[in-house]
Amino acid sequence: MKSDTIVAISTPRGVGGIAVARLSGHEALAIAEKHLSPLTAHLSPRRATYCRFANLDDVVAVYFPKGYTGEPTVEISCHGSLYVQQALLQALVDGGARLAEPGEFTQRAFLNGRLDLSQAEAVADLIDSVTPAQHRLAVSQLRGGYAQTLRELRKQLLDLTSLLELELDFSQEDVEFADRSQLQKTISSLHFQLSTLLSSFSLGNALKRGVPVAIVGKPNAGKSSLLNALLGDDRAIVSDIPGTTRDTIEETLTLDGITFRFIDTAGLRFSDDQVETLGVERSRKAVAQAEIVLYLHDATTPWTEPDLDLSGKATLVVHTKADLLNTPGGVGEGVLISTWTGFGLESLKQAILNTFHARMGDDDTHDILLSNARHYEALKHVRQALDAVSQGLADGIPADLVAVDLRDALYHLGTITGEVTSDELLGNIFGRFCVGK
Amino acid sequence: MKSDTIVAISTPRGVGGIAVARLSGHEALAIAEKHLSPLTAHLSPRRATYCRFANLDDVVAVYFPKGYTGEPTVEISCHGSLYVQQALLQALVDGGARLAEPGEFTQRAFLNGRLDLSQAEAVADLIDSVTPAQHRLAVSQLRGGYAQTLRELRKQLLDLTSLLELELDFSQEDVEFADRSQLQKTISSLHFQLSTLLSSFSLGNALKRGVPVAIVGKPNAGKSSLLNALLGDDRAIVSDIPGTTRDTIEETLTLDGITFRFIDTAGLRFSDDQVETLGVERSRKAVAQAEIVLYLHDATTPWTEPDLDLSGKATLVVHTKADLLNTPGGVGEGVLISTWTGFGLESLKQAILNTFHARMGDDDTHDILLSNARHYEALKHVRQALDAVSQGLADGIPADLVAVDLRDALYHLGTITGEVTSDELLGNIFGRFCVGK
Repeated sequence: MKSDTIVAISTPRGVGGIAVARLSGHEALAIAEKHLSPLTAHLSPRRATYCRFANLDDVVAVYFPKGYTGEPTVEISCHGSLYVQQALLQALVDGGARLAEPGEFTQRAFLNGRLDLSQAEAVADLIDSVTPAQHRLAVSQLRGGYAQTLRELRKQLLDLTSLLELELDFSQEDVEFADRSQLQKTISSLHFQLSTLLSSFSLGNALKRGVPVAIVGKPNAGKSSLLNALLGDDRAIVSDIPGTTRDTIEETLTLDGITFRFIDTAGLRFSDDQVETLGVERSRKAVAQAEIVLYLHDATTPWTEPDLDLSGKATLVVHTKADLLNTPGGVGEGVLISTWTGFGLESLKQAILNTFHARMGDDDTHDILLSNARHYEALKHVRQALDAVSQGLADGIPADLVAVDLRDALYHLGTITGEVTSDELLGNIFGRFCVGK
Repeated sequence: MKSDTIVAISTPRGVGGIAVARLSGHEALAIAEKHLSPLTAHLSPRRATYCRFANLDDVVAVYFPKGYTGEPTVEISCHGSLYVQQALLQALVDGGARLAEPGEFTQRAFLNGRLDLSQAEAVADLIDSVTPAQHRLAVSQLRGGYAQTLRELRKQLLDLTSLLELELDFSQEDVEFADRSQLQKTISSLHFQLSTLLSSFSLGNALKRGVPVAIVGKPNAGKSSLLNALLGDDRAIVSDIPGTTRDTIEETLTLDGITFRFIDTAGLRFSDDQVETLGVERSRKAVAQAEIVLYLHDATTPWTEPDLDLSGKATLVVHTKADLLNTPGGVGEGVLISTWTGFGLESLKQAILNTFHARMGDDDTHDILLSNARHYEALKHVRQALDAVSQGLADGIPADLVAVDLRDALYHLGTITGEVTSDELLGNIFGRFCVGK
């Protein structure tokens, strides 16, 4: 079935020197050429052609017989005025095109087999990327090392399934084709690969969404001063991370290409006047969300152990108010800083980075980093189903019942790459794209 | 002298499906190709080539041996993420390019003779255009009917000058080559052409900047209700007009592709509680700035003549509060409306449009519309200098003194098209462009 022809402005919204309209579908060339002149015949494939678009603008048009979507595509560069962009779209719609939905070009690329679903999601991640780490993650997922890993997992699962299903065909005869211990070996290899992938998620997710950091400490330990001092120089490059929860306000700081999200439960910054119990409750919530905790201690006061449960978190002790000390040093383990003089702030940033690498490992240590929460959930389902298979084989459960769990594992794996899809799933994924991609 | 190579993102700022970086200068191809792979040899002229940009992104690159600037140009379409855009620019700068100043591509197009200065200015107008009327003005200025008119004026001035200067060469011999009455004829023809052009400025400027409209009337005549009712439906498409004075706040409304600016001197909307004298003063100021005045009369009260000087303005009488009348009609000349029921609002909009066309004429009635305030000022200087020439010839002033005024006229005409320029003038003009154009 031939697809209808869609059109959108693919460049960012707003006014600029140039904007690019993209047409995709079987009528793309015909619809574009209705408005273009003079053309000696047709637009030549892949040749940038300077021509006039109706009475509207002078444009450069390029025809791709098989574009990004896998369909005939025409890209038209026009002047980037609001009027021209709107009038050009209107003319193309009047000529028979339809305004594209968000992500519809990439959805077509997926449906036409140009990308699998995980790669399509990587395109959205790539467009959203602000830091080098986010960009590296998206590119690696887009270029297919990740998809290759998933394909191999799928192949192993399919081999297992066919062995078991062969046995099913002959189940009347009570034969056992599949070597059960060999099956268990394959399953435990699969289990190991899945667990490795799943364990990379905390790093992948931290790189993608930012590493959550809580700043805690007694009232007046200097929490808000520290946050301001850390962000001060970099406020210009600080940006909100879209998609994160709005229950807490977060300030982000990028160090060495890695984004750190300082979880700001308001109490952390403004609790000094508030009753301490309220402050403690808020700190507890911040710690629960954090990977890294900065525990602030006012160096002019005696050392006290944190009265929060910091188990399972990477904790960094920060001694504040170094400028008020007569004899700097001798404050024990941790970093000594002064937000007043700036003393120690660079060491603290380095210490935060070191803490991150010590906790999370390095992205060099992983072949593939899992960074997509949807994939993480799906892979957990796959591992769960596989556990059921393993248990079933161990318990001597009939092959037909074991095969149900295996098919469940395959199903969940298929949702990642898109062998299994639903309109709802596709709607969720492509709905978060910008229009024009 | 060979120009250095400049680079900028030419698409609007922000995140989108794709962004386009533009490189221009003699090293453009060499700098781009440092980062592109695989290339069989070089980028073929005008051929859209899919390749990889360093380790950063998959891009489509096109090489134009003589691009928009008249120089070798490479355009690279990348994914429109903030990170990719920034990293791509950085890589090209590291490779030897320089970040372009605002308008620098168009400035090069001007310096390389691809556009005259008035056309270069039209490019900025085209990019800024929001309404069809603004767009039509910019396109007509860009496509050169306007430049052609100016070239003809210049040619006539040059002919005059050379006749006079020939006479100067022989001034010792007291001959009079130039037929003075023929000269006066040419001058009065030039004067007529200049005056026609100058008189088109009020329409051209109104189309470009919006037609200024004042709403006046006694307190409680319904001024603020009317403004709200007019803008109500269209608030979504109402936008500030950049570059207009900020002394008064203006609300704009686009009717039939023409922008109307309602000059809002605050008193007009909120004077009802204020002493009347203050209201009158503010109304006077609004009227002074307006082309069209809406004089509001509360139809439930006896008719009173406006106590403002409305001479020289197109005035439209609006009878308000039709819903409170027992017998609608019989209110005399003007439009009867009710902002409460919406009665008459469409008729009023049509009446505003009709008033505009009656006052301003139609852009069809002018071959060329002058819309640029800088050109308007320059052409006034030209006409002034020409008047001095005419007066000088009539008074029998020596040719060498008359020639000074003629050269003055040529000078001012030359500033429009760019035969005469200064760094300051170019800085003013191109500084208002966006980066990347």
